[in-house]
Amino acid sequence: MAIDTTFGSDNHSGIHPRILDAIKEANSGPAVAYGLDAHTEAAVAKFREHFGKNADVYLVFNGTGANVISISTLARSFNAVICSEHAHINADECGAPEGATGCKLLAVHTADGKLTCDHIARHLQGRLDQHRAQPALVSITQSSELGTVYSVEEVKAIAAFCHGHGLYLHMDGARMCNAAASLSKGLGEISGAAGVDILSFGGTKNGLLLGEAVVCFHPELSRDTLFIRKQKMQLASKMRFIAAQLTAMLSDDLWLQNASHANLMARLLEEKVKDIPGLKIVQPVQANAVFASLPRRALDKLLEKYFFYTWDEEKNEVRWMCSWNTSEQQISDFAATIRASCL
Amino acid sequence: MAIDTTFGSDNHSGIHPRILDAIKEANSGPAVAYGLDAHTEAAVAKFREHFGKNADVYLVFNGTGANVISISTLARSFNAVICSEHAHINADECGAPEGATGCKLLAVHTADGKLTCDHIARHLQGRLDQHRAQPALVSITQSSELGTVYSVEEVKAIAAFCHGHGLYLHMDGARMCNAAASLSKGLGEISGAAGVDILSFGGTKNGLLLGEAVVCFHPELSRDTLFIRKQKMQLASKMRFIAAQLTAMLSDDLWLQNASHANLMARLLEEKVKDIPGLKIVQPVQANAVFASLPRRALDKLLEKYFFYTWDEEKNEVRWMCSWNTSEQQISDFAATIRASCL
Amino acid sequence: MAIDTTFGSDNHSGIHPRILDAIKEANSGPAVAYGLDAHTEAAVAKFREHFGKNADVYLVFNGTGANVISISTLARSFNAVICSEHAHINADECGAPEGATGCKLLAVHTADGKLTCDHIARHLQGRLDQHRAQPALVSITQSSELGTVYSVEEVKAIAAFCHGHGLYLHMDGARMCNAAASLSKGLGEISGAAGVDILSFGGTKNGLLLGEAVVCFHPELSRDTLFIRKQKMQLASKMRFIAAQLTAMLSDDLWLQNASHANLMARLLEEKVKDIPGLKIVQPVQANAVFASLPRRALDKLLEKYFFYTWDEEKNEVRWMCSWNTSEQQISDFAATIRASCL
Amino acid sequence: MAIDTTFGSDNHSGIHPRILDAIKEANSGPAVAYGLDAHTEAAVAKFREHFGKNADVYLVFNGTGANVISISTLARSFNAVICSEHAHINADECGAPEGATGCKLLAVHTADGKLTCDHIARHLQGRLDQHRAQPALVSITQSSELGTVYSVEEVKAIAAFCHGHGLYLHMDGARMCNAAASLSKGLGEISGAAGVDILSFGGTKNGLLLGEAVVCFHPELSRDTLFIRKQKMQLASKMRFIAAQLTAMLSDDLWLQNASHANLMARLLEEKVKDIPGLKIVQPVQANAVFASLPRRALDKLLEKYFFYTWDEEKNEVRWMCSWNTSEQQISDFAATIRASCL
Repeated sequence: MAIDTTFGSDNHSGIHPRILDAIKEANSGPAVAYGLDAHTEAAVAKFREHFGKNADVYLVFNGTGANVISISTLARSFNAVICSEHAHINADECGAPEGATGCKLLAVHTADGKLTCDHIARHLQGRLDQHRAQPALVSITQSSELGTVYSVEEVKAIAAFCHGHGLYLHMDGARMCNAAASLSKGLGEISGAAGVDILSFGGTKNGLLLGEAVVCFHPELSRDTLFIRKQKMQLASKMRFIAAQLTAMLSDDLWLQNASHANLMARLLEEKVKDIPGLKIVQPVQANAVFASLPRRALDKLLEKYFFYTWDEEKNEVRWMCSWNTSEQQISDFAATIRASCL
Repeated sequence: MAIDTTFGSDNHSGIHPRILDAIKEANSGPAVAYGLDAHTEAAVAKFREHFGKNADVYLVFNGTGANVISISTLARSFNAVICSEHAHINADECGAPEGATGCKLLAVHTADGKLTCDHIARHLQGRLDQHRAQPALVSITQSSELGTVYSVEEVKAIAAFCHGHGLYLHMDGARMCNAAASLSKGLGEISGAAGVDILSFGGTKNGLLLGEAVVCFHPELSRDTLFIRKQKMQLASKMRFIAAQLTAMLSDDLWLQNASHANLMARLLEEKVKDIPGLKIVQPVQANAVFASLPRRALDKLLEKYFFYTWDEEKNEVRWMCSWNTSEQQISDFAATIRASCL
Repeated sequence: MAIDTTFGSDNHSGIHPRILDAIKEANSGPAVAYGLDAHTEAAVAKFREHFGKNADVYLVFNGTGANVISISTLARSFNAVICSEHAHINADECGAPEGATGCKLLAVHTADGKLTCDHIARHLQGRLDQHRAQPALVSITQSSELGTVYSVEEVKAIAAFCHGHGLYLHMDGARMCNAAASLSKGLGEISGAAGVDILSFGGTKNGLLLGEAVVCFHPELSRDTLFIRKQKMQLASKMRFIAAQLTAMLSDDLWLQNASHANLMARLLEEKVKDIPGLKIVQPVQANAVFASLPRRALDKLLEKYFFYTWDEEKNEVRWMCSWNTSEQQISDFAATIRASCL
Repeated sequence: MAIDTTFGSDNHSGIHPRILDAIKEANSGPAVAYGLDAHTEAAVAKFREHFGKNADVYLVFNGTGANVISISTLARSFNAVICSEHAHINADECGAPEGATGCKLLAVHTADGKLTCDHIARHLQGRLDQHRAQPALVSITQSSELGTVYSVEEVKAIAAFCHGHGLYLHMDGARMCNAAASLSKGLGEISGAAGVDILSFGGTKNGLLLGEAVVCFHPELSRDTLFIRKQKMQLASKMRFIAAQLTAMLSDDLWLQNASHANLMARLLEEKVKDIPGLKIVQPVQANAVFASLPRRALDKLLEKYFFYTWDEEKNEVRWMCSWNTSEQQISDFAATIRASCL
């Protein structure tokens, strides 16, 4: 029997039918390449509906690219970026931020994947000291890599602290749709309106074939981003197909439906497993991830049938992800298998 | 009336129906992300049918990414890359090669976009001189940015020269299908078998939504390429959808049909316009591009109806590209409009 | 009264008379630039007396340059370097390692500035995972930034661990003369012979005008270092003057006399202040640094007369450095002032 | 008999006695490191006497470092730098500008090493095109690598053209003292006052042990240069010794005496050899270099006794450099040997 990879990552799910339809519809006649086409124009307009009319939008291939372009837009190589040790930019991008921007990452230990102003303050001692990489940017991930969600108030507090200390605030929004759904807020409300300066907006994990965007809320800061995107190898030639997907996702609440469903499935999974003896939910389930610890023996049995990532080998903590197309049946089956493994 | 963009670039054409079908078929069930899925495995196997069983294959987003990964695989930052001044890496990537690899490009003036051994030899004087960036790699584009094609013998001669001088040979094959079709040769025959060490294989311009690949013919040279691809921001999460496209393209001669058609349309266009008084075909039409010069006044009239790129403002030289889906009717209409513009 | 800066850093001291004499002697007649002169040849020979006949030696301007060249010699941009959080490369080089090599630094919390095998092991989990910067190099500082010294056995254990795990070992030896003096060992004994693969050898802090060196103990690993040094902007034109200084320092035990004296002064200072009520020596005094904590009020009084660095603002921990030319009188005066400040 | 290296480079000469005295005088007591000392303060003040009170001055180790810091101050990685193909940054720095700044160099063929506005204009076509590295900076070398000198009017014309096209002007002034002496102008007159925005000021070739400086004429442009200098590995710890040298050089016309003497010796050499049959002076002798061609056989004979660089192997063009300490006797002897070689 093949191993079930459903819960391994929201990247393991495919393309939502409406997204695929959008690709098909965009596949008609010629279109100018590199973003000078009507589909890209429409996508940018759609982004501005959500993020405000000043939003400066750059469509890109993937999240690592979006993060690197965001950093490169607001920092120079002698700058440092303050982030959680769990941040994707710190833990999962093979040194792309350092390699592509030259910046130093100042990674902070966080219990729940969320930065606080105190965390940031600790790294501000060396400012103006020529021997220290100069912090220019704080990066938070919404929802976080541990499945937790910053409240709008928390984002606002961090933004205020950043701006009060001459720092910009970047949001890695690879799963920001899940966060907005969790908070019952709009996409703009939890980002630009809360003080975020630049955003990596994620589409791929929420039902696209591929497609992300850099959204800068202060166009005067992103005058160079057009060139940065190209030099950082993130300019698509047939951009209409990325644009059409993002337009579809941001239309008719598709982003919200997909994200809400994924979140709901995660809570359902939590509900179904939280009372299993020996199993412990180790992070609040606020978006589409369930982090749990379970006995090593149970884990080994479970891994014979399901593929997922062990987050902490020492503590036997694992991550189970839900997606826009995870079904209740899949949750039930998975929960039953987990329960059986823990017997 | 809208301006017709058909001849502006082969990037202006859309997705071939069989490619779109392949995406749809791949959109079934979960699949492990980042290339560890069956679709990617199948794509790699398909590449090896064409390029040999030792070919080490890395799927990526775009051509600039493929070129940067190729350079980074075979050169270090103190190295130099010898290429034509018209090379995409030199003229059209916003400094991505320099920015992402640190290497210096030694760009050579070429009349027809094709490098020769003499061109390369000129840049070998400073070897072992610690003040000079050390040439490590020669990069040729097949078909070239000026629509010309290297014969297999020419590639072999360059490869022999390179290897005799301790240089690697990179082929930017963004349009290598057009070159192979033009030469009536296989894809492997004109690259690895002719001495190319590393290849940027292009799919996008030949009918894909997006998808390119780095193909290294000596696996012992590409041990680090997995990490280079990630750090250079070219690792797709839902890679199955890039893989499925490339598999479809390399199956049942789709690559050849598409490329042959585009080449045929270019020759047809040449045929229909070459006798127009005042118009001059300025490069041999060997692949899917027609380079022509025509009087400024004619050009201005033509640009009112068609969008295309002026390659040399001073000489009024322009580029007309044909694609896998350019129709004979479009050629006839375009040729007639050109003729009328030249009256 | 001017503030006394004697104890602020060993960089605050000047040039030893024998070093200055060496500069003067080298200032005779023309000499080929860029290291192809007899003085540089003599310096390299002198280094080989200490570090073995295989030592591959590159003279450079400063320690940051030596560290960057060392990293760049043994790592590529997708690699990571494991080091102490206090390491100069991590804390005091304004992001030069990241900016100039692209590598990620994996900084480990250490109580005494010294790495252990356990520290290193923690960062080896993500090996072969394409999402993680791949550890290639461990960097230790001898003597450490906290004034502690690795025993030869400790260095050997780390080297064995590194080599058993496919890692290279770099030693930042900005103050390695102090460490060797402290251990009563030779320079080669505590570096190459103990398993160090590449070394940043420091001269400036031990009595030079300026001058450091990269010493690679496996010449097959440093074939590119000549070019790396130039591209990293560390190639001196009139290199004879750096060479002559280093030759003088490595001759007639000058390195040892200078370092021993500095170490002795540090121990004398410790001796004279350790019984002061409220003052606490917070690190073992093993080289030429004394780390102490004292009451905030005492610190403020002391800082009116002496300039030195506060290492930990929260804990009121400060660093006092001794140098090759610190006198017993200066120690007595300083100790007395400290005592008076603590009253 | 040893080969005479006197005419190989002005880097082959040693330290002027007054510079050595300045080092000795600065070697008294402790001094705060990294440029926060009285000697550095005095050097900056001295620079401002020559370059104006707004000049923002950063002392560095070498010319490559000064050039990289200058570029990094005024350009980002997606920018391009327009320069002569003979420019040191293009031909002699092992790709340091590309590697350390990410910028592309757009190298222009020049007959005499001097850029013109026409040269620059040719590279401005691709502005605002996202595929092209964006020109931000023009770099001229004064005196040029071919021993020629820009008149003040020429510099002013280039500066006006640059500023009219949104470009900054950098001067590589490794030998600017020779240029100023040649023009009978002040150092500020030929740089900042003529429209140069940032300057690499050279001291080493004009009699220092080592020492150069970045001088920015618009302090609002160099707010980050402090950090750039450190990250680019050009911050000296015992900076007082670089500062003292530069102060001495800029005092009592030492810069002018040294440069004038070197220039005079070059003209004397030209005078003594220009009538030799078969020998041709191939560049105007305007500074301290003589470029000549002579028969291959003569060259080979000469190279048995003197070391110097062949600039163009095909044309048998060589470079003979004079220095602050070249003597009339050396000129006479060398000229006689040249004459004998040509018999």
